Amino acid sequence: MDQDSLFTKLNAFKIETPSWGYADTGTRFGKFIQPAAAKTIEEKIEDAAEVQRVTGACPSMAVHVQWDFPDGCDPSQIAKNASERGIRIGAINPNFFQDQIYKFGSVCSPWPDARTHADLHMERCLDVAAQTGSKTLSLWFADGTNYPGQDDLIGRKRLLQESLRRWHGQLEMDMTMLVEYKPFEPAFYHTDIADWGMAYTFAKHAGPQAKVLVDTGHHFQGVNIEHIVAFLLDEGMLGGFHFNDRKYADDDLTLGSIDPYAIFRIFLAIRMAEERHGLDTSKIEYMIDQSHNLKPKVEAMIQTVATAQELFAKACLVDLDDLTSSQIAADIVEAETCLKSAFFTDVSDVLRNWRNTHGLAPNPIAAHRSSDYMSRISVERSARRAESGQSGESSYA
Amino acid sequence: MDQDSLFTKLNAFKIETPSWGYADTGTRFGKFIQPAAAKTIEEKIEDAAEVQRVTGACPSMAVHVQWDFPDGCDPSQIAKNASERGIRIGAINPNFFQDQIYKFGSVCSPWPDARTHADLHMERCLDVAAQTGSKTLSLWFADGTNYPGQDDLIGRKRLLQESLRRWHGQLEMDMTMLVEYKPFEPAFYHTDIADWGMAYTFAKHAGPQAKVLVDTGHHFQGVNIEHIVAFLLDEGMLGGFHFNDRKYADDDLTLGSIDPYAIFRIFLAIRMAEERHGLDTSKIEYMIDQSHNLKPKVEAMIQTVATAQELFAKACLVDLDDLTSSQIAADIVEAETCLKSAFFTDVSDVLRNWRNTHGLAPNPIAAHRSSDYMSRISVERSARRAESGQSGESSYA
Amino acid sequence: MDQDSLFTKLNAFKIETPSWGYADTGTRFGKFIQPAAAKTIEEKIEDAAEVQRVTGACPSMAVHVQWDFPDGCDPSQIAKNASERGIRIGAINPNFFQDQIYKFGSVCSPWPDARTHADLHMERCLDVAAQTGSKTLSLWFADGTNYPGQDDLIGRKRLLQESLRRWHGQLEMDMTMLVEYKPFEPAFYHTDIADWGMAYTFAKHAGPQAKVLVDTGHHFQGVNIEHIVAFLLDEGMLGGFHFNDRKYADDDLTLGSIDPYAIFRIFLAIRMAEERHGLDTSKIEYMIDQSHNLKPKVEAMIQTVATAQELFAKACLVDLDDLTSSQIAADIVEAETCLKSAFFTDVSDVLRNWRNTHGLAPNPIAAHRSSDYMSRISVERSARRAESGQSGESSYA
Amino acid sequence: MDQDSLFTKLNAFKIETPSWGYADTGTRFGKFIQPAAAKTIEEKIEDAAEVQRVTGACPSMAVHVQWDFPDGCDPSQIAKNASERGIRIGAINPNFFQDQIYKFGSVCSPWPDARTHADLHMERCLDVAAQTGSKTLSLWFADGTNYPGQDDLIGRKRLLQESLRRWHGQLEMDMTMLVEYKPFEPAFYHTDIADWGMAYTFAKHAGPQAKVLVDTGHHFQGVNIEHIVAFLLDEGMLGGFHFNDRKYADDDLTLGSIDPYAIFRIFLAIRMAEERHGLDTSKIEYMIDQSHNLKPKVEAMIQTVATAQELFAKACLVDLDDLTSSQIAADIVEAETCLKSAFFTDVSDVLRNWRNTHGLAPNPIAAHRSSDYMSRISVERSARRAESGQSGESSYA
Repeated sequence: MDQDSLFTKLNAFKIETPSWGYADTGTRFGKFIQPAAAKTIEEKIEDAAEVQRVTGACPSMAVHVQWDFPDGCDPSQIAKNASERGIRIGAINPNFFQDQIYKFGSVCSPWPDARTHADLHMERCLDVAAQTGSKTLSLWFADGTNYPGQDDLIGRKRLLQESLRRWHGQLEMDMTMLVEYKPFEPAFYHTDIADWGMAYTFAKHAGPQAKVLVDTGHHFQGVNIEHIVAFLLDEGMLGGFHFNDRKYADDDLTLGSIDPYAIFRIFLAIRMAEERHGLDTSKIEYMIDQSHNLKPKVEAMIQTVATAQELFAKACLVDLDDLTSSQIAADIVEAETCLKSAFFTDVSDVLRNWRNTHGLAPNPIAAHRSSDYMSRISVERSARRAESGQSGESSYA
Repeated sequence: MDQDSLFTKLNAFKIETPSWGYADTGTRFGKFIQPAAAKTIEEKIEDAAEVQRVTGACPSMAVHVQWDFPDGCDPSQIAKNASERGIRIGAINPNFFQDQIYKFGSVCSPWPDARTHADLHMERCLDVAAQTGSKTLSLWFADGTNYPGQDDLIGRKRLLQESLRRWHGQLEMDMTMLVEYKPFEPAFYHTDIADWGMAYTFAKHAGPQAKVLVDTGHHFQGVNIEHIVAFLLDEGMLGGFHFNDRKYADDDLTLGSIDPYAIFRIFLAIRMAEERHGLDTSKIEYMIDQSHNLKPKVEAMIQTVATAQELFAKACLVDLDDLTSSQIAADIVEAETCLKSAFFTDVSDVLRNWRNTHGLAPNPIAAHRSSDYMSRISVERSARRAESGQSGESSYA
Repeated sequence: MDQDSLFTKLNAFKIETPSWGYADTGTRFGKFIQPAAAKTIEEKIEDAAEVQRVTGACPSMAVHVQWDFPDGCDPSQIAKNASERGIRIGAINPNFFQDQIYKFGSVCSPWPDARTHADLHMERCLDVAAQTGSKTLSLWFADGTNYPGQDDLIGRKRLLQESLRRWHGQLEMDMTMLVEYKPFEPAFYHTDIADWGMAYTFAKHAGPQAKVLVDTGHHFQGVNIEHIVAFLLDEGMLGGFHFNDRKYADDDLTLGSIDPYAIFRIFLAIRMAEERHGLDTSKIEYMIDQSHNLKPKVEAMIQTVATAQELFAKACLVDLDDLTSSQIAADIVEAETCLKSAFFTDVSDVLRNWRNTHGLAPNPIAAHRSSDYMSRISVERSARRAESGQSGESSYA
Repeated sequence: MDQDSLFTKLNAFKIETPSWGYADTGTRFGKFIQPAAAKTIEEKIEDAAEVQRVTGACPSMAVHVQWDFPDGCDPSQIAKNASERGIRIGAINPNFFQDQIYKFGSVCSPWPDARTHADLHMERCLDVAAQTGSKTLSLWFADGTNYPGQDDLIGRKRLLQESLRRWHGQLEMDMTMLVEYKPFEPAFYHTDIADWGMAYTFAKHAGPQAKVLVDTGHHFQGVNIEHIVAFLLDEGMLGGFHFNDRKYADDDLTLGSIDPYAIFRIFLAIRMAEERHGLDTSKIEYMIDQSHNLKPKVEAMIQTVATAQELFAKACLVDLDDLTSSQIAADIVEAETCLKSAFFTDVSDVLRNWRNTHGLAPNPIAAHRSSDYMSRISVERSARRAESGQSGESSYA
């Protein structure tokens, strides 16, 4: 691929960062509090704008309605303020897991009140979407059970199916509903949408605007994710990604930090779907979903975006003609070489050039580090936190 | 559940044994040859009849066309002979993995000749089905790749989709096509039908007579199989089972030998689909797919059937009223108790009674062991093997 | 095994409950608050006493020094009060993960202050042990890293080794140091004590009073835990257990709720070590480590103890003579039958008799439910919580 | 690292190829026969010499006594012939799994004859070692069981421990005994040496010449192999490697074909043990253990060696000073960058230079492909195979 084509591809490769990735998060064993962590949506937008400033690839931010749009706020004003900082409100994420009423699930709960509560929250989410101009509803359900026998699996499936169908009916025509799956956690015996096959089936039942969301960390060990991606693309059912990496379970680590070759192969699968099979891949939403407990949050986000661009660029460098002829000839070693030589091609120069073209600093992490952004917000936000008297710390037991 | 209802359930619970389960099989590190192992289909039918003699629950035998119906044989005569021994020819299993031409796959191979070869074999299989009166076509594909880049995932998906659709068109109206999935082995990078979601989608594309076949050993560690079973039942897409157990990968161990509670939960999921949700579960085909490398083969098969009946009976003893009210009340401990107390109920007496009703010996394994069946066939088959000069042994390298 | 021998075994089978199992805990996605959850050590002892009242098998409670012995408390007085309620202070659990200084580890941290902090905490723990009369120090380290390159694996090993050796030197001669292992969580790239082999080696280096602690939930999928148990017993290095069950990762579910047969096999491995190989198994400490997010906490603990006793009793019923002769004869099916028939033997009567002998109610869960314990503490503790103004709820982000 | 130092490192980095990697192997579902596959040890040496010709890094070949040294052969003559082709006989691999007598294990079998058979085979292996001048005994046991209860875990442990101790006593003083571990396959319930901890303990009991052999494919999913490597190095117990890669179980794929970053991290762990901690890593034996069912065997071996050299060179390029200071500062992102920038450095030029220095062709695979080696041996060996009348094919059932 020549540099022009690669630049065109890179120009179109936008990555959405998540508001909750700027806040203090942790594991069940506790949170390590960062002075610079964001608390309010204004702070989160500020952080998203910093990421956009140095990467030029992140014009939107996904939001979590429960955390980001407290009662009484004005979503349209928030969107307007964000827009002034160059940030668009991206995917709308309802929260179906935090309230005490969701103890046994949300739309699948045996408690009718929990289901009503979820419905009301969805109304609010659709309202936020309308007011902020977001066109994406991103659904993750923590619903599931912890013990054999705890609940009726088919009964719960039908409740979920019915909710999705109903909500789909409430969508604006230009909105997309993304259905995410996850094998376990926080549910430990069964999760109501446990794998891509269930997400696919629920989406099919919901309606034509529903697609599957692939979170790279939500699979069992060994699952071939690029295969699922290719399969969904051919079915016209891939809606987007939640980017992260993992070594064990849903570790929420930085994309490509554990197995960069796997991420490269996902990008290659998408490219082949488009270039070899003529499938439309332009609607795929690339979003980050990471929880950084140890890394500085804004820096981790910038690192993720830079890594995604590198692996994306490498995937663009695979010689598809060579690859195709090797595949036809069943020349496995040569086919692998096509992948490996692209994967190991140094793309720093080309990315530096691309950044230069867009008036960006050559190295986004360095640009961020050399600014006073972190020191400034650390002081400001620490002060605000001290004022509120909330440490944000948590205790396991 | 009263004894009469349980007996009715047990009467309807038929399990098909596999012809290849009577033959010498092993691991890639070699086979441990058993004097009593069957080689010809006549011997396999003899073994299936012995299992049926002591269990009364196994009136049919699945066949592998390539191994069981050599060129020149007369399938209708074989079916007739089987019938005289009380055995019906069950699921027809094509073989898409053994011939050298399948090196890179069968219907998904980049080699057109491999695809043609598979098509011809399918013709033969449908002919065998017609001649033997079998109504079930059971499809497992070893197709896949070993290395990233080796082949085009979408291209292969389309080849497979097209073959299944075409073959579906050739089915008699009363036949069922079962589509099996498996995450890996013998393919080690990707398998063309890797999980239930792919099998489901391929079956949907193929046509209304195609359903999903769940092999209990073909899942990643931790996958909740009863959830998949419940999901497929609600979708009307569960075709049947290949029974076995595993601790690691596709170990092909005896059903319930590693985790009997998991099998019990599968039977319970089926019962709840029927009794709570009114779904038709009568068409589910229960088949065994096990490879016994160490256990005596006929004995292992009898043990499997007896175990299946025990776990099935235990699942029938769950008090569904109690369970339902516990579920509605979210009383998890009580719901678990419903399951556990049924699981740990001693069903030996009730099974002995049921066997007595059907003129069967009280303990099928003891009945088999106390007969001279094993000693007789060991002598006969050893002699035949010596005559043929084939040891059947294999070497890894 | 006759009833007398079984009763003798059951009499000796004591299970320690954990103080933190009575408190509100959850997942990183939040905690579901229970009105009856304990907060103070007095409340936890009250709960432990309730478990002991109905089970008669739980005379001690493990404590977490950081949570249970706040600065300024008098440990000896706490132990005295506990003793008046029939509860002995059991294993002393330091906390090396919650304080902000442990962000990059405790004794393995690159921050010297974190290591000093851990040392000081250990002093406090040994003091608590001395004052409460506890003879067991139970060590779990969350130490590890999240990313390749984050720290020096060998350097960290040596720091840990040195700390354990030093602490071992500070133990009273009659104390035992238990070293626990865990593959991941909260560390997501490497954990400094990741498996039993590391715990074994660290314990060997520490000194003769150090042994390995096996938490049943701290293994990769598929690991054969009873094999590790047998191996450690033969090495004289098994110190004790943390009981729980899991389907996926470290789910902290009720013992035997997912795979009861696996727990039964662990008990059988212990029995065989003792009865067939003459190994001393009397020092094994059986402790529960579970986090109940959904179940009522005291009830879940009682259920765990009852389940442990059932599976323990079943393991005692295996006919070891039959088993031995089947093993010598390599009669696998018969050997399995020895296990399965004991596993499926109904032990409710024998446990009821045993309870009767000890003046206990026949069914511990029923005895607990029929008392006014839950309603009483729910009221009391809710009031106390309201007074303190702390909801205990937590938010993911 | 400057080029001279890197060349010195590369000069010392020798990789042993396995004789069985040149022969036809497969999965339990069959073997795909290659015309060029080697059958005799002479052919295997010829292949090893071809690998050495183009790589210059593979002066020795591991042998499998049972397959390579048939009764009546003269091992010293074989070694002499090999030597004339530039190949030294490397690790001696006994075979404890293929003979029918090993049905229930070798040294752990309940059958005394199996144990005697294993002892006799060990005598033969030590004789072959003496006659061929090999200094390495590489032990892999397929011993294990398939079913709970099948055998006595502690009894088997003791049998194995005793055999290893006895055999260790028979070693020449300059020989090394490598003890390999594997979680499963061909045993499916328990494997007598299931993990590194067991191999370590057995080696410790055997004597000072016994070390642990790490096969990169013999771990559960998620296991951090570089951590085990670092741990064993610090314990002075790492003997060597069996190189391969896997995505699922023990897939025996080409090193680095699935997760090259993981292999790079292993090389880095070794380098850090040496350079930061002063540990001796010069005795580590790097061996390949792969089974190529689809790739041409000699080509796959060359590809493996070239890949190992690339990833090894990349690990040498990590800036350890930067890494150390980042680790001390807990600057995770910078520490990762140290690893990633070395990993993605293009080392083709430096390897080309190194090859040039040694009179080797710049690209080993191209050098092999452009020779007539494959066409020549395909013709020769096909003819030999036709003569012998053995197709080598195998059938699953």
